Amino acid sequence: MIIDKLIRAIQYKSNPTCVGLDTRVEHIPQAMQKHYNLQQLQGCADAVFDYNRQLIDTLADHIPSVKIQNAYYEMYGVPGVETYVKTIEYAHQAGLIVIADVKRGDIGATSQAYAAAHLDPAIFNADFMTVNPYFGTDGMDPFLKACKEHDKGLFVLVKTSNPTSAELQDLILADGSKVYEKSADLVMNWGGDVGTYGYNAIGAVVGATHPQEGIALRQRMKNTFFLIPGYGAQGGTADDLSGMFVDGIGGIVNSSRGIIAAWAKADTDDFRRAALDATLRMKNDLQRVLG
Amino acid sequence: MIIDKLIRAIQYKSNPTCVGLDTRVEHIPQAMQKHYNLQQLQGCADAVFDYNRQLIDTLADHIPSVKIQNAYYEMYGVPGVETYVKTIEYAHQAGLIVIADVKRGDIGATSQAYAAAHLDPAIFNADFMTVNPYFGTDGMDPFLKACKEHDKGLFVLVKTSNPTSAELQDLILADGSKVYEKSADLVMNWGGDVGTYGYNAIGAVVGATHPQEGIALRQRMKNTFFLIPGYGAQGGTADDLSGMFVDGIGGIVNSSRGIIAAWAKADTDDFRRAALDATLRMKNDLQRVLG
Repeated sequence: MIIDKLIRAIQYKSNPTCVGLDTRVEHIPQAMQKHYNLQQLQGCADAVFDYNRQLIDTLADHIPSVKIQNAYYEMYGVPGVETYVKTIEYAHQAGLIVIADVKRGDIGATSQAYAAAHLDPAIFNADFMTVNPYFGTDGMDPFLKACKEHDKGLFVLVKTSNPTSAELQDLILADGSKVYEKSADLVMNWGGDVGTYGYNAIGAVVGATHPQEGIALRQRMKNTFFLIPGYGAQGGTADDLSGMFVDGIGGIVNSSRGIIAAWAKADTDDFRRAALDATLRMKNDLQRVLG
Repeated sequence: MIIDKLIRAIQYKSNPTCVGLDTRVEHIPQAMQKHYNLQQLQGCADAVFDYNRQLIDTLADHIPSVKIQNAYYEMYGVPGVETYVKTIEYAHQAGLIVIADVKRGDIGATSQAYAAAHLDPAIFNADFMTVNPYFGTDGMDPFLKACKEHDKGLFVLVKTSNPTSAELQDLILADGSKVYEKSADLVMNWGGDVGTYGYNAIGAVVGATHPQEGIALRQRMKNTFFLIPGYGAQGGTADDLSGMFVDGIGGIVNSSRGIIAAWAKADTDDFRRAALDATLRMKNDLQRVLG
C-alpha cells in the first residue's frame, strides 16, 4: 500500500521530508546555465532536467520523496512537460516516491482523465497527486478509483500555506465551523482502508504556516496523512508543524526553494553541496522537534 | 480588450456558445480510428488532433469560441500536450477565441508559472483560462497580472455544474450567505476595467444546471461575464440559463459531448455533419430564449 511505502521510506531515511523540484532556470547557477540555450523552451527544459537529475543523484540517499510542481514544467511548454515526465521516471529509478503537485479537480468525467494522466503507470505514473476539493465528491470519485486501481494516493487541499488562504478556507459557517474543516471532513470520508501505520492513502495538504489549525486538524483527522508545505522560504518552522505529528509520524514536510536554490543563499556555485547541506539541516531541524 | 472581442464575436456569429473539445479517442468514429495506432499515446494524440482540426474547419463559421479541456490532452501524455498546443494554434488560425479549461490555482509563485504557461503568447497562448479560487487573492494575483500584460481573461469557478457542487460551494455561512457567493464576491473584486459592453475580463464559471443560483449571481455580478457549462449532456436547458443573460448578453454556453460526439447519437459516421447539425440546433435553442 503506497501510504505504508511512504511511511516506511520516511522511517528508513529518518527524514519526513520531500524536496520540491520547483526548478526554474533562474534557480540554476550561471556556470550551468551557459551550457543551454535559454532563449528557447527546449533549452530551458533540458537545463531543468539536468539540474533535477543532479539534485536527485545528490539527495536520494537522504530523502524519501520528491514533490514535482507541475506549473514549473508547463511554463516551459511541451519540452517542459517532457522534463516533468523524465523527472518522475528518474526519481523513481533513484528509489524515491513521487508526489505530483498538480492540484487538479473538475467534474467527474474530467477528473477521470486527470487521474489517468498523472497516476496511470502507462502515462505520468506519479505515486501521489494533489487535488482540489471544490467540486465535492463526484469530482473526487475518479481520483479515488484510480488510487485503488493503481495503488496510488492523493493529497487533497484542506488548509493551504499562503497568506490569503483564509479568504475562502476560514469562512465561518452557520454551525460555527470553518470551510476548511468541512474540506477536512470530506477528505476523511474519502479516505479508504487504513494501512499498517494507521493512515489511509487519501491525505490532506495542511500548511506549516498555520500551527494552531494544524494541531486541530491532526486531532480531527486521525487516519489522514498530511503533506505540509510552507516550511522555510514561506515562513513555517519545525516547531510550527510539530503538532501535526503523533509519535514522529503523520506527515511529510516539503521544502522547495530552501533546498533547490540553497546555493544562491550560501553564495556558492556548488548547488549539489548547498542542497545537501540544506537537506541535512532540515532533517536535523525536524528531528529536533519530532524525535 | 479580450472580453469585448469575445462579445463581438458572439454577436457577429449570433451564437453565445463555445464548443468543448473534450476529445477522446472513444469519441472518434471507427472509420477514422483505424488510421491511427491507438495502442500508443502518439497515435491517440494524432487522432485527436485530426478530429479537432476537422471539427474546427466545420464549425468555425458558426461559433465564436472553443473550450479546450486540458485533462483530455494530459491523458495522452506528452504527445497529448502537443495536441493541446496544436489545437489552440489551429483554433486561433480559424479565427476562434480559445478558452483553456485547466482550472489551475496555487500559491502565488506557482500561479505565476501556470499563468505564464497557459496565457503567455510564447507558450500555450490561450485567450482565457479557467481558475480555481480556493487559495484566495494572493493565489489569483499572478493570473490577474498576466491578463493585464497580455490582454487575456479568466473564468473563475464560482458555482460548478456537477451534482455534488453543493458539498462545499453551498455551505451556509454565519451571515446567511453561501460559500459560492463569497467566491462570487472575490471574483468581482478581482475584476478590473469594464469594457464596451459593461463586462470585465475576469469572468465566472456558473453551471447551467443551477438556474436559480444563476439568476441570483447575474444580479449580484453585473459586470462579470459567465462561462456556462452543463448545457445538454449534463442536463441544463436553454430556459435554465436564460436568467444569466441581460439583453441577450452575459455569458457563453459550453457544449462538449453534445456536439463533438453527436454522430454517435445520430447514428452516422459523418461526425462533421452531425456536429454542425448539433451546433445549429443549440444556436437555435439559445436564440429562442435569448432573442
